[in-house]
Amino acid sequence: MKPSADFAGWSRDIQARMETALAALLPAAEIAPERLHAAMRYVALGGGKRVRPMLAFAAGEAVGADAARVEAAACAVELIHVYSLTHDDLPCMDDDDLRRGKPTCHREYDEATALLVGDALQSLAYELLARPGLHPDPATQVEMLRLLARAAGSRGMAGGQAVDLASAHKTLDLAELEFMHIHKTGALILAAVLLGALAGRPLASGERAALEHYAKCVGLAFQVMDDVLDAEADTATLGKTAGKDAAQGKATYLTLMPAREARDYARELVDAALAAIAPFGPPAARLADLARFIVERSF
Amino acid sequence: MKPSADFAGWSRDIQARMETALAALLPAAEIAPERLHAAMRYVALGGGKRVRPMLAFAAGEAVGADAARVEAAACAVELIHVYSLTHDDLPCMDDDDLRRGKPTCHREYDEATALLVGDALQSLAYELLARPGLHPDPATQVEMLRLLARAAGSRGMAGGQAVDLASAHKTLDLAELEFMHIHKTGALILAAVLLGALAGRPLASGERAALEHYAKCVGLAFQVMDDVLDAEADTATLGKTAGKDAAQGKATYLTLMPAREARDYARELVDAALAAIAPFGPPAARLADLARFIVERSF
Repeated sequence: MKPSADFAGWSRDIQARMETALAALLPAAEIAPERLHAAMRYVALGGGKRVRPMLAFAAGEAVGADAARVEAAACAVELIHVYSLTHDDLPCMDDDDLRRGKPTCHREYDEATALLVGDALQSLAYELLARPGLHPDPATQVEMLRLLARAAGSRGMAGGQAVDLASAHKTLDLAELEFMHIHKTGALILAAVLLGALAGRPLASGERAALEHYAKCVGLAFQVMDDVLDAEADTATLGKTAGKDAAQGKATYLTLMPAREARDYARELVDAALAAIAPFGPPAARLADLARFIVERSF
Repeated sequence: MKPSADFAGWSRDIQARMETALAALLPAAEIAPERLHAAMRYVALGGGKRVRPMLAFAAGEAVGADAARVEAAACAVELIHVYSLTHDDLPCMDDDDLRRGKPTCHREYDEATALLVGDALQSLAYELLARPGLHPDPATQVEMLRLLARAAGSRGMAGGQAVDLASAHKTLDLAELEFMHIHKTGALILAAVLLGALAGRPLASGERAALEHYAKCVGLAFQVMDDVLDAEADTATLGKTAGKDAAQGKATYLTLMPAREARDYARELVDAALAAIAPFGPPAARLADLARFIVERSF
């Protein structure tokens, strides 16, 4: 159960494409306010696994979407992700010094700049997705904007972050831990998949439910493996501070089950994700690759 | 040159309408994550002049817009405004203790919650504006979303905030001060006016240019009077800490000109705003009222 032989090449292509696309759409560092724009480019460019963009492109392939339109959706989702990392690293949140192998934004610049960088990246995500003519059907474009905004907000990512904060030094059970993850990371992963597909065409309700189930399972599997890797890998491999969750007394899958069991659970989730997208047939091959990649990755 | 006799009643009606609308659209404090939702309601409800919503409703009246649609636009703009106040008050920004006569969000709750409150309010603004069927023409709805996102971002409000931070303890000239204000507060005031009008119908290019000029003049006049009031009024009247800008060594209109001259300048700007909207005739009466109110207000 490994990704296709050419998966590594495909994922490198997406990473390169995203780097080019984000570099073009982020305001140049020479445009006032220069320091803010330089800091936005600092956090958004030059790194990142780009897992959410890959999910968007893979979902786009599953429905035969135009890649240029998927690219805009992928960039919008990634900007939301990068904004959330920038704010999560702030001293009043996780207080982290290292991200993607570089000093975090507030360490390289300052706290106020990091705050504004996150704020402005969130705005830029919607500005990008609201470009006139991005989608031939403006009603679908409105729906994409609504899905992204809802995924980012208090009943999505920001809400999950709030639950995460409230859960430090508390004993969560599996249901509570998964409620947190479904919001904190799952909501944006779901948005990546749905926006990638909607960039192509409207979805039948069965298709949408299938993609939602795929995204939910992949999102949880990703988080399970994040906890496993956080416990087992070192800081240099991860590009961020390893072992941090455990040190902060936060609940993780590994506080609820042994690592072997967590890996098995991740594999079960991936199997469920693969079953969900089976009706899409061969065009869903990249979605399947991504699900498999999540349990095989080492960083 | 005073607002219409019934202006006070009209503005109270808008304030009451906004309170009801925001209370209905903000997630209930009983919905998880409860603390985050309670804090979002704390900052968004129970206060505020609601100047931007008034501008949206007044612009809607100028083009005969449906008030229910204008209300959504007004709420979206106000949510962006409230998010920006919440973040601006944080210790790494203005470090303020008092807002709208109450403790600021990070004083009443905590810094991490205030950060997430701002983040989630920004998302909610776009989620609201992306409601299916909000506007009979989805392409206009996309344009409203684009205008709001651009106004909030690094080439708008967030950018103005960055310039403001960089300008502490620096001597700005009038041109630099106005560049800052046109971004920090002017961009969102412009969005309020344009969204209110677009909630009604597409704008001819001359109409749009007229509303843009009106908004620019009104926005600057508002800022000039803010500086005058900040220097002359007391904390109880303002509902926020008075004299703060001067104490922080920030450039204001009063560091560049005497108070009398600043008041004259505000009046000139209001005259220019009134001239810009003259072609709209009697339906623009509330826009005219608002321009006049800005130089007559005492809080």
